Amino acid sequence: MKHTSIRLADGRELIYFDEADDAVRASVDQRDLAAPPAPTQLRRDPLTEEWVAIASSRQGRPLLPPTSECPLCPSKPDYFTEIPADDYDVVVFENRFPSFSTSAPIEPASDDYPSTRPGVGRCEVVCFTPDHESSFGRLSETRVRTVLAALAQRTAELSQVPGVEQVFCFENRGVEIGVTMHHPHGQIYAYPYVTPKTRQHLAAARRHHEATGRNLYADVLAAEIADGARVLARNDHWTAFVPAFARWPFEVHLAPHRQVPDLAALSDEEREAAAPLWLSLVRGFDALFDAPMPYIGAWHQAPVREDRELAYLHLQLFSIRRGPGKLKYLAGSESAMGAFVNDIPPEESASALRAAMQATLS
Amino acid sequence: MKHTSIRLADGRELIYFDEADDAVRASVDQRDLAAPPAPTQLRRDPLTEEWVAIASSRQGRPLLPPTSECPLCPSKPDYFTEIPADDYDVVVFENRFPSFSTSAPIEPASDDYPSTRPGVGRCEVVCFTPDHESSFGRLSETRVRTVLAALAQRTAELSQVPGVEQVFCFENRGVEIGVTMHHPHGQIYAYPYVTPKTRQHLAAARRHHEATGRNLYADVLAAEIADGARVLARNDHWTAFVPAFARWPFEVHLAPHRQVPDLAALSDEEREAAAPLWLSLVRGFDALFDAPMPYIGAWHQAPVREDRELAYLHLQLFSIRRGPGKLKYLAGSESAMGAFVNDIPPEESASALRAAMQATLS
Repeated sequence: MKHTSIRLADGRELIYFDEADDAVRASVDQRDLAAPPAPTQLRRDPLTEEWVAIASSRQGRPLLPPTSECPLCPSKPDYFTEIPADDYDVVVFENRFPSFSTSAPIEPASDDYPSTRPGVGRCEVVCFTPDHESSFGRLSETRVRTVLAALAQRTAELSQVPGVEQVFCFENRGVEIGVTMHHPHGQIYAYPYVTPKTRQHLAAARRHHEATGRNLYADVLAAEIADGARVLARNDHWTAFVPAFARWPFEVHLAPHRQVPDLAALSDEEREAAAPLWLSLVRGFDALFDAPMPYIGAWHQAPVREDRELAYLHLQLFSIRRGPGKLKYLAGSESAMGAFVNDIPPEESASALRAAMQATLS
Repeated sequence: MKHTSIRLADGRELIYFDEADDAVRASVDQRDLAAPPAPTQLRRDPLTEEWVAIASSRQGRPLLPPTSECPLCPSKPDYFTEIPADDYDVVVFENRFPSFSTSAPIEPASDDYPSTRPGVGRCEVVCFTPDHESSFGRLSETRVRTVLAALAQRTAELSQVPGVEQVFCFENRGVEIGVTMHHPHGQIYAYPYVTPKTRQHLAAARRHHEATGRNLYADVLAAEIADGARVLARNDHWTAFVPAFARWPFEVHLAPHRQVPDLAALSDEEREAAAPLWLSLVRGFDALFDAPMPYIGAWHQAPVREDRELAYLHLQLFSIRRGPGKLKYLAGSESAMGAFVNDIPPEESASALRAAMQATLS
């Protein structure tokens, strides 16, 4: 695999990840682009002790443009997109409407009310395929390996960016989940703080480690494997399961058998082995109901600088669809109180997913 | 005001809150109802140390029934609803598809994986008006006072229910937020645990109190009043403001000037004074765009048994609408990492809301 970094017309970086080692990437961005938007501002919520990004420049971003105006398709002679080349395998580039940016100065938080600081960090878009009509579930295993290699490379690189504290690779899929571009793609957020959910996971993992000397997630994985009732698939390096405490109607974890902090820390063999399982889980999601499944695929990774031995890399793949024509909404109990009610017992969703995954093989 | 408690055909309690002190409530539920569903199960998520309710019985609940089959309208001679009477002011009854129930036994959590316990608690529906086509924003001030009196009475009562640790009064409004019934109504959840968000608020408030000796929310309110840039409305007892750290596109807090733990602890005068402000905020929300605003109205209350001096009652009213035809979705960053990005600066949303609230007065 080969990767080639170029600059777009407004200075943003774009990186081709090519499956052919002799790929040549000479196309130049011929657009006349406006300067990037001003950096965002972080404000501290004192009631939760969390940072909120105020990103007014994102209000103007394109919302579900027609296929003929898709900015993630390859460029054509009469139509220039974000990708200067006329074809690609996997391509990663800096988001034009970023929530965090390296153009923001690194400054300490202010002391006043509200405490603020510049939105340092970086947001990237990951195009999985030049085929606008495809989807993650229809990628080849080879392509999923290329995606994983790209995410691992980006995690390693972004971990070196000054001010970045955590790297998050994810896919939002489906208009029901808020996707603004139909073209198959994922995203990477390099945050200037450890995210609230990861902080919460680490606090629980720390208490567990102090009490038992063991890694919390490793214990959960071992318990799920020992029980087996919600295990969906396994190979030498990974196990996929519905956690017994799933909060989403359909929720799956894909975890390596070895504690690693992030995708960059996986061995080549482990990365190779992840691809077929990740793919079969997404294909199973899509086979559950008549329509393509709205979902979020979230790679939980350790912070860049701290608690790397407490964390445990895993993919959390979850959907808000709870049935044909029925969505789970985050209403008052979930959005205001953080209290989740799941209408589908994890054993039932595991059984439905196993059947759906089986159906995609036959 | 008068309240009258009756039992529905399946044993659930229903309470009429009548504005006329001489109201007579003699109607009997004539339906032949199936027995209530089995209680739910709580499962402990060890990764977050939170409880998740597994409520399979809720999968079968009605989803947006046609007006002619609305279970929240008053009964007619040829059509029986949840409310036996042919008219009402405000009525509260136990949810037929509850996430928590007093029929569940009170038992300690199990020790195994996952740790489980029965879903003790109570879920209630609060009908604001017999008029199916109305909405909270179109209620009279008198009616909003009756709603507040009902919520205060329910908070006091439910705080006495064995096993209940927190009472949450809220309104989900709009199909965009997942409402399954169009009839104007709110809900009350009496949880068997202190909710994750409230636990988080209390932890921050405790640290602030230890460091300063002061109440955290009171300090936020004082800072917002002193700044004034985001204050929307005030009277002798309450101030409404957009917090400087708002995480939702439109988010308003309505807070009393005196620290009280919950609605039940308000003086009559304070409760009276809350009604016009609450109403004008909702009317302002509805006047922002061409369409009725989807929103969540959430009364943050103290736990029943602990930390009642650290908490501070307030209404958090927020919407996922960020513009005409545009919604804010909780996608990967928010749903998986808890990291919020808000596209609308709080000063701008405050300014838009002030103008909208002004427009409803003229």
